[in-house]
Amino acid sequence: MSDILEAIERKKRGGELPEPLIRSVVSGYTAGEIPDYQMAALLMAIFIRGMSYGETLALTRAMADSGRRYSFPECVDKHSTGGVGDKVSLTALPLAAACGAPVAKLSGRGLGITGGTVDKLESIPGLSCALTEERFRRQVEEVGLAIAEAGELAPADRAIYALRDATGTVDSLPLIGSSIVSKKAATGAGHLLYDVKCGSGAFMRTRREARELAGLLVRLSADLGIRASAVISDMSHPLGRAVGNALEVRESLRFLRGEGAPEDLAAVARAVAVRLLELKGVPEPERAVERALASGQAYELFARFVRAQGGDEGALERLPLSPRVREVRSPAAGHVERFDALGVGRAALLLGAGRRKKGDPVDHGAGVELLVGPGERVEEGQAVARLYGDRDAERAAGLVAGALRLSPEPAPPPPAILDSL
Amino acid sequence: MSDILEAIERKKRGGELPEPLIRSVVSGYTAGEIPDYQMAALLMAIFIRGMSYGETLALTRAMADSGRRYSFPECVDKHSTGGVGDKVSLTALPLAAACGAPVAKLSGRGLGITGGTVDKLESIPGLSCALTEERFRRQVEEVGLAIAEAGELAPADRAIYALRDATGTVDSLPLIGSSIVSKKAATGAGHLLYDVKCGSGAFMRTRREARELAGLLVRLSADLGIRASAVISDMSHPLGRAVGNALEVRESLRFLRGEGAPEDLAAVARAVAVRLLELKGVPEPERAVERALASGQAYELFARFVRAQGGDEGALERLPLSPRVREVRSPAAGHVERFDALGVGRAALLLGAGRRKKGDPVDHGAGVELLVGPGERVEEGQAVARLYGDRDAERAAGLVAGALRLSPEPAPPPPAILDSL
Repeated sequence: MSDILEAIERKKRGGELPEPLIRSVVSGYTAGEIPDYQMAALLMAIFIRGMSYGETLALTRAMADSGRRYSFPECVDKHSTGGVGDKVSLTALPLAAACGAPVAKLSGRGLGITGGTVDKLESIPGLSCALTEERFRRQVEEVGLAIAEAGELAPADRAIYALRDATGTVDSLPLIGSSIVSKKAATGAGHLLYDVKCGSGAFMRTRREARELAGLLVRLSADLGIRASAVISDMSHPLGRAVGNALEVRESLRFLRGEGAPEDLAAVARAVAVRLLELKGVPEPERAVERALASGQAYELFARFVRAQGGDEGALERLPLSPRVREVRSPAAGHVERFDALGVGRAALLLGAGRRKKGDPVDHGAGVELLVGPGERVEEGQAVARLYGDRDAERAAGLVAGALRLSPEPAPPPPAILDSL
Repeated sequence: MSDILEAIERKKRGGELPEPLIRSVVSGYTAGEIPDYQMAALLMAIFIRGMSYGETLALTRAMADSGRRYSFPECVDKHSTGGVGDKVSLTALPLAAACGAPVAKLSGRGLGITGGTVDKLESIPGLSCALTEERFRRQVEEVGLAIAEAGELAPADRAIYALRDATGTVDSLPLIGSSIVSKKAATGAGHLLYDVKCGSGAFMRTRREARELAGLLVRLSADLGIRASAVISDMSHPLGRAVGNALEVRESLRFLRGEGAPEDLAAVARAVAVRLLELKGVPEPERAVERALASGQAYELFARFVRAQGGDEGALERLPLSPRVREVRSPAAGHVERFDALGVGRAALLLGAGRRKKGDPVDHGAGVELLVGPGERVEEGQAVARLYGDRDAERAAGLVAGALRLSPEPAPPPPAILDSL
């Protein structure tokens, strides 16, 4: 019996897959020797029957080893499970780099309501994330921060992820965990912080699920020789007030310049930077972070990073937004509890800020700017959001209005960091 | 969400698939609009989560309706779940036809250790099972018996079966049941007897499993307007003493001519013929069967059938066997308990009587002839089997010797018919 059929036979009855069998199936599938339909049957069996920790680790290793592997043992990196208005990479990474923790990050593009750091950075005229390995490595050394588009690393994960997406086998904890950690292990940073998002705009809807995933990510990383920890951050409301590529870079720049940023964004950016410095063993990380912000070093590092990747530093002051602007007004008076992250994310997608499927173009100037935040009082008819973009603005406006949750009394906003491990 | 993804989502969580969704998925897959990998994921979810009776019936209907449907409401038909040396169609069908129950049967070719009636009949020089619908229908009317190779009926079942075979999703009761009954419903006989084989040489290894499948087949058939019943027959030992295409036709002819046949074969052939006549409402079916055998009418009908399908009736007396013959001797003295059906079936396959995969050629003259039967005394070194065929005869001999189960005392053979419903 072929290895893939043996794996299917074992797993469909709830059995355990030995490591050599997992390796053989992963390499056979990556090489195109195992057809999609057999892999799909195995993935569904794994989805329903689950995998032990040992199997999950073996799968992670096999996928990490399926292509090239970089090695940046001195560097830090972070990974977000994806959310709406998630600009933690744009803020926490230059901050950590400015405090002496070099960052080697490979990132992706947005899909669905989840934005991607590469799309956001490309709203800066001239900036490119298509770096060769050599240029990437040199920039890490010279600037302390490089962000490149993930390319040939972990090809097995890329192939398996595309198949999972088409076969209803995405939402499986061992498959999610092995997918994330295999890519991170192939990237090769020695210190890793996972930002697991939790809430309506995130993959993990409950804190229990988020904690479970965070625990798996940290354990798998440790077993692959990576120092890792995790925070669980709120994604019931978008992070900050800007959703959309250029809008998010603008908000991130205001934070890095110390010009004032929404409390939740500032809290998560600082917390992630501090955790990265802790992993790296930098002494007094909180003080280092405050100094880097107050002295302008964090912003300066980001500007150097932009120049190094070909971006026009001068354009940072005036990143173009879509000229088609529309305001959304509150349908009633009350206190803002939150904007539902899922609704705002869908609105930004409709406006053109994101892509429905891989390869779609994005409008870097499109998105949603929230004008009020949790706890604030609004009157009926008051403008609560501004929409940028010329696609589907009416439906987007309806989504944003529908996403606004009002309460009669002001309620304290939920903490930005819900948990950590 | 597309229908296939909705079906996957529901079934992977153990939900029920509504009939319209099942119909849409079956027709979409048959039309090539749903890719194999999505169907494979759904099949695995069905394999693990199961299907309710209602879902199984809906799937059966959808597959039966996926191509052309014949209609022979006055005819009888039988279906065997497949075994080693299974010559019930070759014996019971001409017998029932000779008693006034017209038979319209579509049959298949052998695969693995399971023989196929079409292969067996083609060992008769000139005989063809490639009949047009019109010729098939006319022969049913004129001769009372026609056996054609199943062609364009139930294409959905054919496509799904091939995919199940490649994805480890064969051994699922609802998938087996719907596959069998959809083909039979498309064939259109109004009266149907299922011969569910049970034992080492059959798909169902235990009586409990066999009864469960038989019950499902009868219930699905009734809900599709077919009068059906079932027998469960023993397949721990091959049926009769001949395994291989021409060998089995020869043994069947001896039974039809009343020249004496192994007890188990005679018992099953008679029982199936009687049950078919009962379904059709023929009075005193046991007496009718005995008369047809004693008068030579059963053999005469088979000879007319052979002529009608282009076969050389004169050749029936001397169907060619492979000239390469080898004897297997008993390794010890004792009483024959049985020959294990699986071992004998594998030996016949090695000798060339069967095919490992679809499209392989078969050697009509190859096979295994057992020289002793259950309960008989054998001495050490006595010839117990004769092998025909020039492929792999040494390994085949080892398998047959290993299949011989001896006991110190003579034990009564198991009943040929284990159960019925």
